[in-house]
Amino acid sequence: MTELNHRFTLAARPVGMPKRSDWNYAAEPIPDLADGQLLIKILYVSLDPAMRGWMNEGKSYVPPIGIGEVMRAGGLGRVVQSKNPAFAVGDHVYGMLGVQQFAVNLGKGLTKVDPKLAPLPVYLGTLGMPGMTAYFGLLDIGKPKEGDTVVVSGAAGAVGMVVGQIAKIKGCRVVGIAGGQEKCQYVVRDLGFDAAIDYKAEDVRKSLHTHCPDGINVYFDNVGGDILEAALANLARGARIVICGAISQYCATGPVKGPSNYLSLLVNRASMTGMVVFDYADRYAVAGREMAGWMAAGKLKTREHIVEGLETFPDTLLQLFKGENTGKLVLKIADDK
Amino acid sequence: MTELNHRFTLAARPVGMPKRSDWNYAAEPIPDLADGQLLIKILYVSLDPAMRGWMNEGKSYVPPIGIGEVMRAGGLGRVVQSKNPAFAVGDHVYGMLGVQQFAVNLGKGLTKVDPKLAPLPVYLGTLGMPGMTAYFGLLDIGKPKEGDTVVVSGAAGAVGMVVGQIAKIKGCRVVGIAGGQEKCQYVVRDLGFDAAIDYKAEDVRKSLHTHCPDGINVYFDNVGGDILEAALANLARGARIVICGAISQYCATGPVKGPSNYLSLLVNRASMTGMVVFDYADRYAVAGREMAGWMAAGKLKTREHIVEGLETFPDTLLQLFKGENTGKLVLKIADDK
Repeated sequence: MTELNHRFTLAARPVGMPKRSDWNYAAEPIPDLADGQLLIKILYVSLDPAMRGWMNEGKSYVPPIGIGEVMRAGGLGRVVQSKNPAFAVGDHVYGMLGVQQFAVNLGKGLTKVDPKLAPLPVYLGTLGMPGMTAYFGLLDIGKPKEGDTVVVSGAAGAVGMVVGQIAKIKGCRVVGIAGGQEKCQYVVRDLGFDAAIDYKAEDVRKSLHTHCPDGINVYFDNVGGDILEAALANLARGARIVICGAISQYCATGPVKGPSNYLSLLVNRASMTGMVVFDYADRYAVAGREMAGWMAAGKLKTREHIVEGLETFPDTLLQLFKGENTGKLVLKIADDK
Repeated sequence: MTELNHRFTLAARPVGMPKRSDWNYAAEPIPDLADGQLLIKILYVSLDPAMRGWMNEGKSYVPPIGIGEVMRAGGLGRVVQSKNPAFAVGDHVYGMLGVQQFAVNLGKGLTKVDPKLAPLPVYLGTLGMPGMTAYFGLLDIGKPKEGDTVVVSGAAGAVGMVVGQIAKIKGCRVVGIAGGQEKCQYVVRDLGFDAAIDYKAEDVRKSLHTHCPDGINVYFDNVGGDILEAALANLARGARIVICGAISQYCATGPVKGPSNYLSLLVNRASMTGMVVFDYADRYAVAGREMAGWMAAGKLKTREHIVEGLETFPDTLLQLFKGENTGKLVLKIADDK
């Protein structure tokens, strides 16, 4: 077979914001398949804040990407060759396929998805890892009760938009924090949040005080830094903080900013709990069915921010850290044909 | 009545370490009792880290002490006059009696204690608020399981020594963190901790790694600051951090040091939860009986660090923040006669 696989491999461990030279972009021949293997043509690559962490050395919840290895990423593709009886040519699959055009895989860790039920990019967003993160983080860790005030940062991002909408479904009052007027209007007008705070234009601590007069019952944190401190300053008694991420800190070159007012946890008998979505893998299917039902009923809207072209990957990834995307950021690699 | 009541009132809100001039020391006549009131001769005053926080302005779990008001403190005394049918002359009572020789009280918030069951100072320590804090913080928030590794800071203090011993009773492996060789020897040799780390002489992060090879399951934090960070760096998956206090930060003049590695909560699916002992008031009696039973069985040892003389109060309080006490710091005001 003479077709080439273009791919990004990790060239260097980035300091601060990743730059183009932290990856190599090159093509290699696609190997012949061994028994049990399948060849996947990648259609969409998922771009997620967690990818920045995977590029660092050191112990975390998954091993770091090795230098010279394909850049790790979730992706959606179509099976184009198969020597594995569990997968047929034409099947659509989700898995950790990497930032490349083709993936050779033994079928492990792949999930079949049905493009008739939802457009393929939705399986990288609301019906994929970000949606699962929102669902389990909010419901299992945040434990919102009807009437609670739920605040979510990164509100117009892939996780935040789902968190807020599920909180509304559960009867909560929802305040989103996002950057810029457009995102704030989006979560209020299109997604039905009760209020939004533009962190680029407002004093978040004061605005939270205004919008949450009885304090925050559940704070779902995607960003860390000053916004986490602003939320800590406005907790209700018994509040639950879900630590899902800290995108404001991932590209920091100095030490991460810890919340200097963490003793608000003591004063308010509150908790701060970390979560990693992979722990809920055995419940993805149940959650996916429930969320698909909400989507069908018009209660859960989805939005993807799609950028075309594998070669744009380094710049497109940075949109996440610059806050340029609204909805799930997806890189389109190829048409589904 | 001509007897005088010497007392410390708050003169100024301290900056950093409290100093002598932050209080006024003066005597006033003891008023005649109205119906329902009782007069308590204070025998022992409890000195607790939380007192530093009560001197600050601003919202907390209790209102700040007002300027000119008696310095708030728990204390033990004997009823010497009573116009309240619920209390007889000679009763021994615990309550928030203040840093003074006598307290006039309506009987609200007072608990009778029995000097035949335990020496009076024990009711300010292991059978008092510090003991209750240890009991509920460890068991209700920390939720240790048999075989867990439990780490406690301020291990030779009034709360820490009880935390470690209860954890041993529950079948845990216990590592204490304390300042100085003497305290470390005390918790290991006298109290039965499995190991102790001298934070003044050791790299706490490295020593925790050595003593907790499988990570920390429960970390009971009394100190905050660098030691909290060292614990966060050594968590086991699913760890529970109990935020009981942060004595290293109470006298800080700059901003409190937030834990810069709080994202360890995410990586380890761990939680950090604040607690205030007053929330458990309806269970104090049950806990007290259980702890008294452990004491009678020789499983729970107690120790008080008693300093004599009301007038020494400003200097004696500072012993807490300088780490000079081993066991519960108590100020003796008068003999029980």
